[in-house]
Amino acid sequence: MKILLTAFDPFGGHSTNPALEAVNRVRSQSDGIEIIKKMVPTVFGDSIQAAAAEIDAARPDAVLCVGLAGGSSALCLERVAINIDDALIPDNQGNQPIDRPIVPGGPAAIFSTLPIKAMVQAIQQAGLPAQVSNSAGTFVCNHLMYGVLHHIQSQRLKIRAGFMHVPCTPEQTIHQPERPSMSLANITLGIEAAVAAIAAHETDILLTGGALY
Amino acid sequence: MKILLTAFDPFGGHSTNPALEAVNRVRSQSDGIEIIKKMVPTVFGDSIQAAAAEIDAARPDAVLCVGLAGGSSALCLERVAINIDDALIPDNQGNQPIDRPIVPGGPAAIFSTLPIKAMVQAIQQAGLPAQVSNSAGTFVCNHLMYGVLHHIQSQRLKIRAGFMHVPCTPEQTIHQPERPSMSLANITLGIEAAVAAIAAHETDILLTGGALY
Amino acid sequence: MKILLTAFDPFGGHSTNPALEAVNRVRSQSDGIEIIKKMVPTVFGDSIQAAAAEIDAARPDAVLCVGLAGGSSALCLERVAINIDDALIPDNQGNQPIDRPIVPGGPAAIFSTLPIKAMVQAIQQAGLPAQVSNSAGTFVCNHLMYGVLHHIQSQRLKIRAGFMHVPCTPEQTIHQPERPSMSLANITLGIEAAVAAIAAHETDILLTGGALY
Amino acid sequence: MKILLTAFDPFGGHSTNPALEAVNRVRSQSDGIEIIKKMVPTVFGDSIQAAAAEIDAARPDAVLCVGLAGGSSALCLERVAINIDDALIPDNQGNQPIDRPIVPGGPAAIFSTLPIKAMVQAIQQAGLPAQVSNSAGTFVCNHLMYGVLHHIQSQRLKIRAGFMHVPCTPEQTIHQPERPSMSLANITLGIEAAVAAIAAHETDILLTGGALY
Repeated sequence: MKILLTAFDPFGGHSTNPALEAVNRVRSQSDGIEIIKKMVPTVFGDSIQAAAAEIDAARPDAVLCVGLAGGSSALCLERVAINIDDALIPDNQGNQPIDRPIVPGGPAAIFSTLPIKAMVQAIQQAGLPAQVSNSAGTFVCNHLMYGVLHHIQSQRLKIRAGFMHVPCTPEQTIHQPERPSMSLANITLGIEAAVAAIAAHETDILLTGGALY
Repeated sequence: MKILLTAFDPFGGHSTNPALEAVNRVRSQSDGIEIIKKMVPTVFGDSIQAAAAEIDAARPDAVLCVGLAGGSSALCLERVAINIDDALIPDNQGNQPIDRPIVPGGPAAIFSTLPIKAMVQAIQQAGLPAQVSNSAGTFVCNHLMYGVLHHIQSQRLKIRAGFMHVPCTPEQTIHQPERPSMSLANITLGIEAAVAAIAAHETDILLTGGALY
Repeated sequence: MKILLTAFDPFGGHSTNPALEAVNRVRSQSDGIEIIKKMVPTVFGDSIQAAAAEIDAARPDAVLCVGLAGGSSALCLERVAINIDDALIPDNQGNQPIDRPIVPGGPAAIFSTLPIKAMVQAIQQAGLPAQVSNSAGTFVCNHLMYGVLHHIQSQRLKIRAGFMHVPCTPEQTIHQPERPSMSLANITLGIEAAVAAIAAHETDILLTGGALY
Repeated sequence: MKILLTAFDPFGGHSTNPALEAVNRVRSQSDGIEIIKKMVPTVFGDSIQAAAAEIDAARPDAVLCVGLAGGSSALCLERVAINIDDALIPDNQGNQPIDRPIVPGGPAAIFSTLPIKAMVQAIQQAGLPAQVSNSAGTFVCNHLMYGVLHHIQSQRLKIRAGFMHVPCTPEQTIHQPERPSMSLANITLGIEAAVAAIAAHETDILLTGGALY
């Protein structure tokens, strides 16, 4: 079982970002799961290309893209990506698309193909707050999620994919005491629990003789 | 330098509470600071008596009472305790005083004598969000803070004292994903940083030949 | 210009709901706009049928469905409805679908066809907070929005449609002082501003010789 | 029965403020209650002097100071004022005191002498969210509340006094849709309900032959 984790490069001049740091800390091999990690640029278009190239090269069984959701207190498993870019701020290359489809003519939305409720439960059993989220926003996170799912769908690849939003770390909220946060250690633990749930789900399907798709 | 940390016993039928667990994890001896720990009952009256008895027996240089503030995302250093009990829920013995003075005839409020802004800064330098809070509520936390400060004041003891509120742990918010939390490891780290700031402040005063009071 | 407003019947044993009350207060005729109002049941399936029947009978130029979003402080113009029912609580007839498509085989999502950004701006110009929302949830509000848009799309009707979420009224938050609210008068004003923006948008399109679809 | 309402002048370059506007809209005479209104400067020191001068000149039976609490969703009746100024931003004359007592040698705090729980109940019965607050902050609102209560206390005047915080109006939150607000009409209604509760309380005391103090 091979799982690809993606994380965005540092955004807006920061030297790092917690989603990237957490992905880097995830154990690369555990319980028969091989983890591949790929940093993608926080840029409309390029992020999808980088992830798609890695998918095509590495042929993972599943893809979990990870991004930061400032203001969130729990780990959020995204249910759906919508076919629109609507940026309140520019990306790392200064692009700020407004109400523009990600894939012209593409479906209005694509649902996550990861077992999001099993992932929520696994994270909760690891002692951390988690929930299903019904919107990944309209910035690069939703963009990447849509793009990856659309790539997999249009190439008819047998790969599950989805997106997980993580809270700020305490370091990021030092001077914003009203903002919720989660420690890097716990974000990492949550990603590992999510990955284990993805793997367990695939194994269940194989054991019960069910078809993956 | 001897510092007394107090924490409340588990509340409302729970088997533990994170403030107590964190206090228990604080290293008992470090950098010339001796830490004494005392669990006090989550009960109006009894909590003050237990803390006052420990203060009289152990004669610490400073007292830091620690309690839980559900809904908080940062470590909160309380500025002031007010002379009133006004409980929305009963304490661990079923007491629920409404608009009753803690010490009849006592001052309306007593300010913390701990260096709260230095403590905030020390916690921030440890990488965690912290702030001064202007209200410790009107339940047992404010009650204990007022009672301890009043005991010290009325006995003319040369002991600094104050209160620190800590967030819920992630375990407590598993099914309340909108609630902020902080890991037990980080709460512990924050208490240790606060304790170090108290000790550094005392040392500064001694070194500069200043009087403590 | 004929605009259909829908509102849900009172939910969960309450005698009324603010979205319904506000819709009832909207002036029925103004500036060449004829307003039709339709109360629909807070029930999966039935709500769509009731709205679709009214659309087929009245043949409005546009449909604005209105619903309550507890916890919201602003008027929210929904961008998209997704093809899933996932109810945390039962509807008014005890139905509680979990992860069930609204229209089996239907598109994953349908975008609002109302001019949501012009509506936001019109509400702001009326002195009220408003924003585009990227999720209408997965309860009856999203269900109705999807169902109405799907009905219009599948019947190839030349009717714009969308959904607006409104905050609780102050009466509903009397004992929940931490919850935001908006007065019934202002919710009504906001709906009227939104309706005017829909009408102005249609007029613009006609005047500039543009095609509606 | 004569009741003095104070409100701060516009702050930070704004042309008005909602607390002032609401106070201006309160009916000046109703049910045997004479209302006097006084605008005070948003300035440390001067605000207390202006209010104290008006109290000495008009000799009201009660004083209700009103101020804005950005971020609040309910009308908040303050329980207590503390003897400290600690300003995060400058006042209207550029003063920004840090950790400075309002009245050197004054009591650490003074409790409101208004019937705050009866006022909360009266506002709730008027259909609006209200609560007792245990902190008026450490800026000019707490400053004025403390100063007025201290003036009355030190002059041994038979005048009740206290402070009420009101939310932002919707106009103020137009571009901050996550911020709660309350309509000017409802803020005004809430102040009127609070004033009526103050008057009813005084009448009760007189009718039952009780002493005011």
